[in-house]
Amino acid sequence: MTMPAPSPTLLDSLTGDEEIGGFFTREAELFAMLQVEEALAGAEADVGLIDREALGAVAEACRTFKPDWERLARGLAQDGVVVPEFVKQLRGAVGQTHAKAVHFGATSQDVIDTALVLRLKGAVQVYLRRLDGLLQALHALKARDGAVRLMAHTRMQQALPFTAADKIDTWLQPLERHREALAEFSPRLLAVQLGGPVGTRAELKGHGDAVADLMAERLGLAYAPQWHSQRDRIGEFGSWISLLSGTLGKIGQDVALMAQNEVGEVRLATGGGSSAMPHKSNPVPAEVLVTLARFNAGLLGTLHQALVHENERSGAAWTLEWLVLPQMAVSTGAGLRLAQDLVGKLTFQSSVT
Amino acid sequence: MTMPAPSPTLLDSLTGDEEIGGFFTREAELFAMLQVEEALAGAEADVGLIDREALGAVAEACRTFKPDWERLARGLAQDGVVVPEFVKQLRGAVGQTHAKAVHFGATSQDVIDTALVLRLKGAVQVYLRRLDGLLQALHALKARDGAVRLMAHTRMQQALPFTAADKIDTWLQPLERHREALAEFSPRLLAVQLGGPVGTRAELKGHGDAVADLMAERLGLAYAPQWHSQRDRIGEFGSWISLLSGTLGKIGQDVALMAQNEVGEVRLATGGGSSAMPHKSNPVPAEVLVTLARFNAGLLGTLHQALVHENERSGAAWTLEWLVLPQMAVSTGAGLRLAQDLVGKLTFQSSVT
Amino acid sequence: MTMPAPSPTLLDSLTGDEEIGGFFTREAELFAMLQVEEALAGAEADVGLIDREALGAVAEACRTFKPDWERLARGLAQDGVVVPEFVKQLRGAVGQTHAKAVHFGATSQDVIDTALVLRLKGAVQVYLRRLDGLLQALHALKARDGAVRLMAHTRMQQALPFTAADKIDTWLQPLERHREALAEFSPRLLAVQLGGPVGTRAELKGHGDAVADLMAERLGLAYAPQWHSQRDRIGEFGSWISLLSGTLGKIGQDVALMAQNEVGEVRLATGGGSSAMPHKSNPVPAEVLVTLARFNAGLLGTLHQALVHENERSGAAWTLEWLVLPQMAVSTGAGLRLAQDLVGKLTFQSSVT
Amino acid sequence: MTMPAPSPTLLDSLTGDEEIGGFFTREAELFAMLQVEEALAGAEADVGLIDREALGAVAEACRTFKPDWERLARGLAQDGVVVPEFVKQLRGAVGQTHAKAVHFGATSQDVIDTALVLRLKGAVQVYLRRLDGLLQALHALKARDGAVRLMAHTRMQQALPFTAADKIDTWLQPLERHREALAEFSPRLLAVQLGGPVGTRAELKGHGDAVADLMAERLGLAYAPQWHSQRDRIGEFGSWISLLSGTLGKIGQDVALMAQNEVGEVRLATGGGSSAMPHKSNPVPAEVLVTLARFNAGLLGTLHQALVHENERSGAAWTLEWLVLPQMAVSTGAGLRLAQDLVGKLTFQSSVT
Repeated sequence: MTMPAPSPTLLDSLTGDEEIGGFFTREAELFAMLQVEEALAGAEADVGLIDREALGAVAEACRTFKPDWERLARGLAQDGVVVPEFVKQLRGAVGQTHAKAVHFGATSQDVIDTALVLRLKGAVQVYLRRLDGLLQALHALKARDGAVRLMAHTRMQQALPFTAADKIDTWLQPLERHREALAEFSPRLLAVQLGGPVGTRAELKGHGDAVADLMAERLGLAYAPQWHSQRDRIGEFGSWISLLSGTLGKIGQDVALMAQNEVGEVRLATGGGSSAMPHKSNPVPAEVLVTLARFNAGLLGTLHQALVHENERSGAAWTLEWLVLPQMAVSTGAGLRLAQDLVGKLTFQSSVT
Repeated sequence: MTMPAPSPTLLDSLTGDEEIGGFFTREAELFAMLQVEEALAGAEADVGLIDREALGAVAEACRTFKPDWERLARGLAQDGVVVPEFVKQLRGAVGQTHAKAVHFGATSQDVIDTALVLRLKGAVQVYLRRLDGLLQALHALKARDGAVRLMAHTRMQQALPFTAADKIDTWLQPLERHREALAEFSPRLLAVQLGGPVGTRAELKGHGDAVADLMAERLGLAYAPQWHSQRDRIGEFGSWISLLSGTLGKIGQDVALMAQNEVGEVRLATGGGSSAMPHKSNPVPAEVLVTLARFNAGLLGTLHQALVHENERSGAAWTLEWLVLPQMAVSTGAGLRLAQDLVGKLTFQSSVT
Repeated sequence: MTMPAPSPTLLDSLTGDEEIGGFFTREAELFAMLQVEEALAGAEADVGLIDREALGAVAEACRTFKPDWERLARGLAQDGVVVPEFVKQLRGAVGQTHAKAVHFGATSQDVIDTALVLRLKGAVQVYLRRLDGLLQALHALKARDGAVRLMAHTRMQQALPFTAADKIDTWLQPLERHREALAEFSPRLLAVQLGGPVGTRAELKGHGDAVADLMAERLGLAYAPQWHSQRDRIGEFGSWISLLSGTLGKIGQDVALMAQNEVGEVRLATGGGSSAMPHKSNPVPAEVLVTLARFNAGLLGTLHQALVHENERSGAAWTLEWLVLPQMAVSTGAGLRLAQDLVGKLTFQSSVT
Repeated sequence: MTMPAPSPTLLDSLTGDEEIGGFFTREAELFAMLQVEEALAGAEADVGLIDREALGAVAEACRTFKPDWERLARGLAQDGVVVPEFVKQLRGAVGQTHAKAVHFGATSQDVIDTALVLRLKGAVQVYLRRLDGLLQALHALKARDGAVRLMAHTRMQQALPFTAADKIDTWLQPLERHREALAEFSPRLLAVQLGGPVGTRAELKGHGDAVADLMAERLGLAYAPQWHSQRDRIGEFGSWISLLSGTLGKIGQDVALMAQNEVGEVRLATGGGSSAMPHKSNPVPAEVLVTLARFNAGLLGTLHQALVHENERSGAAWTLEWLVLPQMAVSTGAGLRLAQDLVGKLTFQSSVT
């Protein structure tokens, strides 16, 4: 089957994210897989499993590789994973002499999972940068509007007065905890996967751990024993995304409630327009933060279904991760972008005399 | 923001579906919105709310409209919905004289929801056709292999012998019920949405019901009172998708279990290959049916969160539908395609002497 | 293990339901299982598989049975299902002469599933009664307050004026559709399950279909071919529950928003109090309807995971249904009760001059 | 409404847990609330907000309190939270002279959330103890059976031989990571909540932070700024539960697959019996571990919906936590118990010559 190049959906302009989305294109996936194959060959040359000439040929091919996308797509549809066809094409590019040096001792999952982690590393850096930006923007907002007196609301009813600073603190504190948690689990997440067909590294003739270690170093990842059937790393990353999205959704919900005409505790510099009611100024980014919180919470419940990864490789569970994780990652990028946009537009107004 | 035209992901070749996916491109959405605007104008001309000349201008513009995609995307990002910018462009195409005849008395949600229903109608027809094909294939398989003696398995242990016909019956019967249920709820689902800004049709000056009725007729949809904040139609459609996906997932799980080398109760004409183990023949479509069942079950749980649609229009809940429903629809198309493919490749083999 | 008799949690007084909860106690389950065993024996006597004297002994034992709860609990913990120990105890009560007439030709799932359906039939009747009561209450509210002018709100902003009748219509219409849908799928749901160990009814020596038919008649259920590994009936029931809960949650969300002090479009006759702020009147039933909508939406996503019911009986999937379905059923009872309570307390107040 | 004391469901003997369940009875909740009120009064006496005599009266009442359960239940049904009625009863027990010293400056959520954390601390200790037991059992199993040669399976097909030690390692490693993660986030989780009505601690007249600190010390919890509308602590705990349950579910799925009669790679010392097929030995604990993994994954998706906690207290979101978190905690207890039971019964058998 040939898939036509699709256009972006219109919704992508709101809930997509170019920077994070860029890690999940077919081009980015291919590029990461080529990095993995090159690092694998490099590590294998270091320990003497393949010779330097072979490494040269593999490295050259990895850097100049031109995929036959249509055959890759057909390969994935047939094999359930793109690696068999990808390796075939890469071996073709390397040429017969050194073809065997490509993907030596590795299996599909080594390439796919390590290539995923490489891109998650990039995504984590983007999240950190945006999270810092958001924290700064919230601190600035607090510095400017913190003294504004508001009415606190509990159970959808007016409670007692407090200040904008009190409100903003309830947004800042969980974001700071998310930053802390990210620092804790990132080293667990950003680890190389190398196991060979069934995870024993036996095909690497006693050099398995050394190859994994050298490969990790070349790729800027941590070393780990093979983890191909242990999906808690992925599940833990998803949990973090959903926690962060939930906090952003809480901010969005608060803003949408405070921006109600009848409440008027915040004003948005610009709001969304309506096709029928020109007077309206809709708190679109605030609403969409709620959407993304609910979206990622639900997807997390599905991602964790994939923890039941039967035996040494589950096609069913692994494919489920592929369907769920990228959209969680991208929508989290969108959430951080929208939150920063929202906070930048926000002015608190006193509702309490 | 400009979104670059993305390439399809490689995974689309496995879990995507060109035919159903075709209903959810930006082009298909735009085309359906133009159909809705034209039908609205037509209905309004019929009752005299706009004149025939205006209708002619609107209809002409709808048929020849060339969108500025980039501004549509920016519009959606700003307004949370594409309709304000779309109507602006369409009015521009109609020209000043008849600009007011475009989108007269309607609101964004009338256009978006009716345009969605139009495309769901197409999707339902595809599902029905494929479901019939699958039922036929299963009946043919039963006719050919039904007498093969198998071992029934309960709680992952051998139970007692039965036949392939007994097994296939457990696949056929729920599919037939899904067909029956689709016939029951389709009339509820495939209904026009017309309410105007807050659902009263007041802007249509007493002709609201007539306009909705005529519009429905022009579009081949059923009439309904406005339902923009009543999202049970969408939720019910999602439920059906998930039930169907679940049944297909059960078939996939059964096949994957029976295809185990140690069990050997079915053989697949062709299986997926491995990058490391040339001897393998993996039951890829069977596994992916399990994936899609779990995927759609999870998404259903999220789609139903959108039933809590606050007041007369919830940006948060509506956007959540947009994120969830298309991927449910497309992956269901993929599931039906994969199931038919799987059944076609299947041969039962006796495991019982 | 002995489980001590627990006290109800305090939360049960809010989100539990005595009437529906009554169908899901161990006593109710046991009673239904005894009804099933008696109906099975009766049907088997009708076709001559067991003699009338045996039927008398079984029927007598079913009506006077005194369970050893502790051994039943241990049996379930050991076997994963209570039926083996239950049948053992019931055979003991019948006595050696007719022990074999108990549970003849049946399997655990026949008893458990049919006993479940019997109780779902009771639950459906309660839902219908309460749904009718709620519809009546809404019609009465509309008759009384329908002319009150309100402000419609879209995307959390004031839109245009409309009336309380317009608002109430958006609550009534989906409830009426749920009533219609219940009538459609109830006959599918409320069907006997009889298959024997692997679903072939072979143990009933050619009388299987007749026994199932007579058993259904005795129990007031519809006949159906065995469906023990086809869980769409259960999934469809869950879908309906979640749709209904979603509609009730939308009503709750609307009321909570309209009851905000700043908005003041509805007044509740009595609200919940606070331990710290005596001035507050919290819209507790409205909030809890939102809770239950989100709860059931999430549980639905889990219940549909159980559609992937591997082979002829899945301990994993079946047990998942047991954990999820009862709490969905009970909380739906609570939702209908709370909604009726809420509507009864509600007065609309004009916010528009 | 009076709720009758329910009997345990039969299913509790399989998926319940007496020890963890003991933290979530109404008695345990009340006991923890009394501990919180006493610690609060103690801390307030330390800083001079109430006098020593008042503290004596409060402490005495907390230790001898006899609840009127029925009125507590009615109070919760009315107020959406039990605290107003609980404080009323406790003040009654203290007597008029010192009634005001009860619950001074606090709000419902301070009591409920801190009382929850107290019990979660107990649950975490149980989990740790059982997790250690499970790790030990797995190490012992590896020491005894590690050399047994098995067939690795990928995508439900035979791959290549490896050993039982290789398999067991894939179970041990994620469990060790879960232990590590628990150590990381426990200090975040096990923190006192004290904020007063809207989280400012203003009612404590400048002593708020000191009172919270002293209260934390008395209760053996960490100090934290008020966090009543920041639900990431709860969400993070749920994430951990679901990760752990997922790993246990993977172990269960592996065992169920290896225990198939046709595969025969493990033998269970005792299996579950069948009411119709005496020859069967069903891998019940293995299946139920899969059930609990899917159950908790789904519940996690719902628990994270409650992160969108609007404004200073959300009745809707908070009640959702109450419905979801206890059953996650209890079923995780069950999972650890079942896993230890399963591993204790397991013998590996070679399937490879």
